[in-house]
Amino acid sequence: MAKNDEDYSVKIRVLSRDELAMGPGKADLLDQIIKTGSIAAAGRAMNMSYKRAWDLVETMNNCFKTPVVEKSKGGAAKGGAVVTPFGKEILDQYRSIQKKAHSAIKNDVDDFQKFLKHQSNSKKY
Amino acid sequence: MAKNDEDYSVKIRVLSRDELAMGPGKADLLDQIIKTGSIAAAGRAMNMSYKRAWDLVETMNNCFKTPVVEKSKGGAAKGGAVVTPFGKEILDQYRSIQKKAHSAIKNDVDDFQKFLKHQSNSKKY
Repeated sequence: MAKNDEDYSVKIRVLSRDELAMGPGKADLLDQIIKTGSIAAAGRAMNMSYKRAWDLVETMNNCFKTPVVEKSKGGAAKGGAVVTPFGKEILDQYRSIQKKAHSAIKNDVDDFQKFLKHQSNSKKY
Repeated sequence: MAKNDEDYSVKIRVLSRDELAMGPGKADLLDQIIKTGSIAAAGRAMNMSYKRAWDLVETMNNCFKTPVVEKSKGGAAKGGAVVTPFGKEILDQYRSIQKKAHSAIKNDVDDFQKFLKHQSNSKKY
């Protein structure tokens, strides 16, 4: 995952009963599955074991009403996996919730940062 | 730390250069120092070693313009630690930023949760 080069970060976790249905790691994993077409490759890109990546996918598929990731059915992507249209929809919604939370507190965090000796690197640019 | 019994959580981290100046763990530690008057006791309450608790305090003291925690000067609290008025101020501001981010996305998270098979326990009450 990219090094966080922002002044502040906001991590949102959405729970379903006691399970983490969606969070930053699962969202990044979906992005990687879209990019690579494979759960194994997505896991590798995130320095995650195949088992771990698969567990995260299974949790999402169990938590949501409709599967988020499905095995791709033959063709060029044989043996791979695809994020379903439903999965893309919830990923988009999650990303938009992240952005909204981030924007909502921007001015307050700016004020908060005045108490810091130094602001983070990104302020320099 | 208390079990999270909400439907969603928002974790905010404020950075200073490459250091984490304030986040959920540091804020909870400040709460515990206020409560117990001691870094050691605050760490114990959070299942954290004394060294770890002290490191978090030192990071905060280094990141902010003014100390956030100081050793208390004798009297009944001898050997203890106090959160300074400045420390209480930044803790209050951090808590209010947390609440603002949480509220800002509430409706969107409600919509998002409609995609879940089950909503979390707290929805039952």
